[in-house]
Amino acid sequence: MSPTPADRPLGVALIGYAFMGRAHSQAWRTVGAAFDVAEIARRVIVGRDEEAVAEAARRLDWDEHATDWREVITREDIDIVDIAAPGFLHAEIAIAALEAGKHVLCEKPLANDTAEAEAMVAAASAATTRGQIAALGFTYRRVPALALARQFVESGKLGTIRQAKAAYLQDWLVDEDAGMSWRLRKETAGSGALGDIGSHAIDQIQHLTGQRATAVRGRLATVVPRRPGPDGPEDVTVDDAAWATLELDGGALASVEVSRMAAGAKNRLTIELFGSKGALRFDLESPNELWFLDATRPVAEQGFTRVLVTEPEHPYLEAWWPQGHVLGWENAFSNQARDLLVAIRERDDSPGAAASFSPDFADGLALQRVLEAVIASDAADGATVTV
Amino acid sequence: MSPTPADRPLGVALIGYAFMGRAHSQAWRTVGAAFDVAEIARRVIVGRDEEAVAEAARRLDWDEHATDWREVITREDIDIVDIAAPGFLHAEIAIAALEAGKHVLCEKPLANDTAEAEAMVAAASAATTRGQIAALGFTYRRVPALALARQFVESGKLGTIRQAKAAYLQDWLVDEDAGMSWRLRKETAGSGALGDIGSHAIDQIQHLTGQRATAVRGRLATVVPRRPGPDGPEDVTVDDAAWATLELDGGALASVEVSRMAAGAKNRLTIELFGSKGALRFDLESPNELWFLDATRPVAEQGFTRVLVTEPEHPYLEAWWPQGHVLGWENAFSNQARDLLVAIRERDDSPGAAASFSPDFADGLALQRVLEAVIASDAADGATVTV
Amino acid sequence: MSPTPADRPLGVALIGYAFMGRAHSQAWRTVGAAFDVAEIARRVIVGRDEEAVAEAARRLDWDEHATDWREVITREDIDIVDIAAPGFLHAEIAIAALEAGKHVLCEKPLANDTAEAEAMVAAASAATTRGQIAALGFTYRRVPALALARQFVESGKLGTIRQAKAAYLQDWLVDEDAGMSWRLRKETAGSGALGDIGSHAIDQIQHLTGQRATAVRGRLATVVPRRPGPDGPEDVTVDDAAWATLELDGGALASVEVSRMAAGAKNRLTIELFGSKGALRFDLESPNELWFLDATRPVAEQGFTRVLVTEPEHPYLEAWWPQGHVLGWENAFSNQARDLLVAIRERDDSPGAAASFSPDFADGLALQRVLEAVIASDAADGATVTV
Amino acid sequence: MSPTPADRPLGVALIGYAFMGRAHSQAWRTVGAAFDVAEIARRVIVGRDEEAVAEAARRLDWDEHATDWREVITREDIDIVDIAAPGFLHAEIAIAALEAGKHVLCEKPLANDTAEAEAMVAAASAATTRGQIAALGFTYRRVPALALARQFVESGKLGTIRQAKAAYLQDWLVDEDAGMSWRLRKETAGSGALGDIGSHAIDQIQHLTGQRATAVRGRLATVVPRRPGPDGPEDVTVDDAAWATLELDGGALASVEVSRMAAGAKNRLTIELFGSKGALRFDLESPNELWFLDATRPVAEQGFTRVLVTEPEHPYLEAWWPQGHVLGWENAFSNQARDLLVAIRERDDSPGAAASFSPDFADGLALQRVLEAVIASDAADGATVTV
Repeated sequence: MSPTPADRPLGVALIGYAFMGRAHSQAWRTVGAAFDVAEIARRVIVGRDEEAVAEAARRLDWDEHATDWREVITREDIDIVDIAAPGFLHAEIAIAALEAGKHVLCEKPLANDTAEAEAMVAAASAATTRGQIAALGFTYRRVPALALARQFVESGKLGTIRQAKAAYLQDWLVDEDAGMSWRLRKETAGSGALGDIGSHAIDQIQHLTGQRATAVRGRLATVVPRRPGPDGPEDVTVDDAAWATLELDGGALASVEVSRMAAGAKNRLTIELFGSKGALRFDLESPNELWFLDATRPVAEQGFTRVLVTEPEHPYLEAWWPQGHVLGWENAFSNQARDLLVAIRERDDSPGAAASFSPDFADGLALQRVLEAVIASDAADGATVTV
Repeated sequence: MSPTPADRPLGVALIGYAFMGRAHSQAWRTVGAAFDVAEIARRVIVGRDEEAVAEAARRLDWDEHATDWREVITREDIDIVDIAAPGFLHAEIAIAALEAGKHVLCEKPLANDTAEAEAMVAAASAATTRGQIAALGFTYRRVPALALARQFVESGKLGTIRQAKAAYLQDWLVDEDAGMSWRLRKETAGSGALGDIGSHAIDQIQHLTGQRATAVRGRLATVVPRRPGPDGPEDVTVDDAAWATLELDGGALASVEVSRMAAGAKNRLTIELFGSKGALRFDLESPNELWFLDATRPVAEQGFTRVLVTEPEHPYLEAWWPQGHVLGWENAFSNQARDLLVAIRERDDSPGAAASFSPDFADGLALQRVLEAVIASDAADGATVTV
Repeated sequence: MSPTPADRPLGVALIGYAFMGRAHSQAWRTVGAAFDVAEIARRVIVGRDEEAVAEAARRLDWDEHATDWREVITREDIDIVDIAAPGFLHAEIAIAALEAGKHVLCEKPLANDTAEAEAMVAAASAATTRGQIAALGFTYRRVPALALARQFVESGKLGTIRQAKAAYLQDWLVDEDAGMSWRLRKETAGSGALGDIGSHAIDQIQHLTGQRATAVRGRLATVVPRRPGPDGPEDVTVDDAAWATLELDGGALASVEVSRMAAGAKNRLTIELFGSKGALRFDLESPNELWFLDATRPVAEQGFTRVLVTEPEHPYLEAWWPQGHVLGWENAFSNQARDLLVAIRERDDSPGAAASFSPDFADGLALQRVLEAVIASDAADGATVTV
Repeated sequence: MSPTPADRPLGVALIGYAFMGRAHSQAWRTVGAAFDVAEIARRVIVGRDEEAVAEAARRLDWDEHATDWREVITREDIDIVDIAAPGFLHAEIAIAALEAGKHVLCEKPLANDTAEAEAMVAAASAATTRGQIAALGFTYRRVPALALARQFVESGKLGTIRQAKAAYLQDWLVDEDAGMSWRLRKETAGSGALGDIGSHAIDQIQHLTGQRATAVRGRLATVVPRRPGPDGPEDVTVDDAAWATLELDGGALASVEVSRMAAGAKNRLTIELFGSKGALRFDLESPNELWFLDATRPVAEQGFTRVLVTEPEHPYLEAWWPQGHVLGWENAFSNQARDLLVAIRERDDSPGAAASFSPDFADGLALQRVLEAVIASDAADGATVTV
């Protein structure tokens, strides 16, 4: 069975219309203009609030709207189910969509807990054998500068990577009078800064180095432990800052730091890799730049080179604008949609081939286990926890 | 007469489907998702090569394609004519579209010579009295950091501006064996680096300072005077680098430098403003940053502040993504489309009001005269030429 | 008793003539030119190798040289003993010099182990009651930008500091064939990257925040465990990278990372402080810059300000060059010498006052205990260790 | 005749004890510690105000002071006369010292007018044939990053240089109520921003490119034309901003811009060179960095490399501190003193050889002529003036 129709565009259903729904919509509206990919049709956007989702369908340019994702995912004219709903819904929707024979793109995090994630991996595994793609949306992997970083590592430009250093700092909780929200309660958010943004940092470390964390030590903190709620002060029940060190299976050691109270850090995901032959630096607040140190150059010329990642030779860039015309945050979502469509086409062309979209659900589960090991380490007063 | 229909979306026709056509298409596809503006319909894209424009219509998501702009601009269902065709066609199309009662957005440069530009201004003037908008596409004015710069100047944060310094450097002619092209021949390109990119630098100087050039001194150069053509070496007949100093009517002095041989400069439009109370710096290769020096702060704290222009408080940003999620080059085109739609709405709401889109055709003509004064100065061995 | 003579310059003896001896010599040669301080005489430089120290005396412009520090420290014409000898000699020399009634400036680290450090503190305590100064040379506290950072924190510009982040990265061990040296053997070096450069990072965190570490978690690593020795491969017996998190007594949490294998990092001590009202950043590779974020400014103007710390309003700068004329690494040693001379003068003017030079030996001991807690934590598999 | 004694240190006399006198003193105190050069003796510092110069001698560590330079320059024990006095005294002192058989180091500018400069060149020419050195103090040539830049150009790393761009911006006249001073009156200062700081910019352009200006166009401005004087408002009679374009004899074109009203620019001498194979950037506010673009590298890795010029492989650095330990503004003066001493030694070793210190007086005269051509061009309404 092939989920891809021969005679019509690929039909896309988008579940979710908030921040992530807007970003994914922009990608589906744009991917065909930028890239030479299979034609798609933006069939339906799904949300629980009918009035709001109807307005979203109009503004974000979807053919229809719907309020029941269960009906949508079984529609004949839907081939791709794109899940941009809150994390606690991921497992149920993704498993159902995969069982209905659809390709699935699921926003990160994969799921709110390991049990759910394991069920999703099982469903994805079965679907993959049927020719479906189950893709996980760690979109930053498709930021061209980070894709270039991965190319540099893969081609050996850094030599053996020995040390990695990632931080994801934000500042939206600097004000200690900033009130409680669902993101600060464990029962609704699942986890705090570690799960929300630390997951990106750890995914990048593993992805860029090509190494997996095998053991971790972690520390979580809730630096501002009480915040004003609707009925008076309330306990913040998730971490607002976290630190970890990771042992990677290729021999490197990595550090991770995250915070929601880092004044002046707007969306500062910084990554540094140090190898035997070179080093790399990246900052998501300047996402079109990759800083590369080639330690094999003559010493008198050595230093970090600011590569402005806007050349046709750079990943994804040939599809966009001429050199020097930078991309924004949103373009990575189009790059991701492109890669999903390419993966579907390649799968159709070689039905027996393995799923080619990375990261997949198994990567999401593996990452979940790293996060849980960090939490377990903190609970064990910092002891090393094997992943 | 109002060109705006009450009962249907505003119909847009786009003339041109190459680089600029793609950028404008992305804007029309996106503007309604990002901003709360009048609904538009992407009716038709126009180009001379039927096969190519048909493919463009499909990829860029226009309802139809056409090869004859004359038929298109008189269609009842077209309200906005967006001209992204080569410069030598601007005058003819824009004048016809304005006479047909349409709103017009015309890419820069306004025209290839002053006579054309004057005719366009006359047509725009007449159209404006009929309630139409004639807008000129110096899109960089809608880069949020530059729009913020203008706000800072207007609100007096820089005090009296005394000095401005702009450069627009590119490197696509560094290789002296890079071959001839239509851009390097005067008869096809009209002008060289000065007209192509110097126009942006001068527009920004005038726009940001709020001052107009009254007299200039200029120098043009063709640093690599011969390049390989299809039939052997050929003379480059336009400038590949240029310099000018401008006297502005508010008392400031400005310098401009442009080059197509500046190795490592990809699209480096840099602007610096120096006032009695502060200073600003901008670089188009890092377009989400505005550097602001507040000379009224205590000396021990003074310095250039890197403002990451991604806050809801910044121009256009509320419509886009959360803080720290940067925009790309293309987003300025959506901002421009938004401003055009707002101008149309405001005009409809107050039929007698003056056109509110800046820059307009008269601005384009004024800029043309500055460019010609620079050329005239160079021809007069650097003598001061009054604009 | 006052160790300061009324009728002649303060006599200085310098113990050590290698890298640190050269830096201290430059300071003693320069301090009187830059600052309005008591006159000093560079009486004698001391080293074990007579020929080498004689040459050093000549080049570094000392009146005499000597090979026996014991004789030197009791000389009548010596008032200040400046110890720039290897760490394992600090305790013996410093205690003897203090007992001989001299002011002492001791290079960091205070001592190689806690027992020595405690004895030094006891000697310093006794000496202080006699009017002597016992100063510890964490010279980076006298880098003007870091001194300014301390002023900003003290004056409340950052509000409550909640998070600090320091890293000290170097790259001289990137090459895994770089051979063994005394710095890589525990018996000669005492400790590795943690003690050598991590000590600076932790001193800055405590000094700048004004908070002391009360509990730590640490991790040490020897990433390249064997290196070529004179008789074949040898075990590296100290850490070449380390990580720690510190709980500070003011409620902040701090992270520290150090490495000797960070390709491209030449002497990169970076420090970031995040408070409720602002933030600071510093990088020792650009030591004349302090980056300050004032979170109380209007949001549209907020961002990190690059303060070029060269104004007369900045610490130490009035004594140096006009604005914009930057200082180098060595100038901090002159600033340190100046502060020592000022402390001596203040002590002479108010004989009963407490020692006013910071850091003193007790600070050095406290820092030693933090380092040992980090090591103990690592030995206990990352468990929290109280300082 | 050799001016260099065999049996005693080279005796130095310094004329001037203000800002430049302090900087030169620091160099003479330091050069022997940093470099392996001939021994020198700081014999005498000269100034007209006896009390002040006596105090300077004490603080800056000179053996003696004197008030009459005429007596000093003929002393037997003086070999080098270092002229750090105001510009209008340069000619008289330098010529006399050269005639007295001394080596001379003269601060820039060489002289206040061309006639003086020509006389100095004549005296230097005669002295050179007698084995003396007549050196001109454009000290920035000895900033290691700029010396490295020159090496890069010489070794062909930039290919053919086609364009250069220099600016020297300061902000000490931003405040329009800043009062009159001798620097703002033509009769005392000789010239304004062009001569004071533009001379550095033009010297660097010519030195780094290895090309001489043959024709110029210039513009001078006095943006704030009146300033408060002791007896009411007074006319500013020198330029406070200037612009020029230079045609260089190697085919390159260069632009220069200077200003004393550039808010936020403390001492911002920026230089950019663009060649057929690469580019360079430098900023005196970050003087330890050289930014290098190698256009021959693979496009995907290209970009400006920040070379931290602190390696032993870099010019002058082996004499200073380990890598990553940056130099300050003052160190260039020690580098200059070192080069002077080396030139003297080389001359002594090869008596017939040509003077090896660059720049020499002839370079200073040539530069003077470029400055005067810029002024003449402005007076001729911007017309090209041949140098």
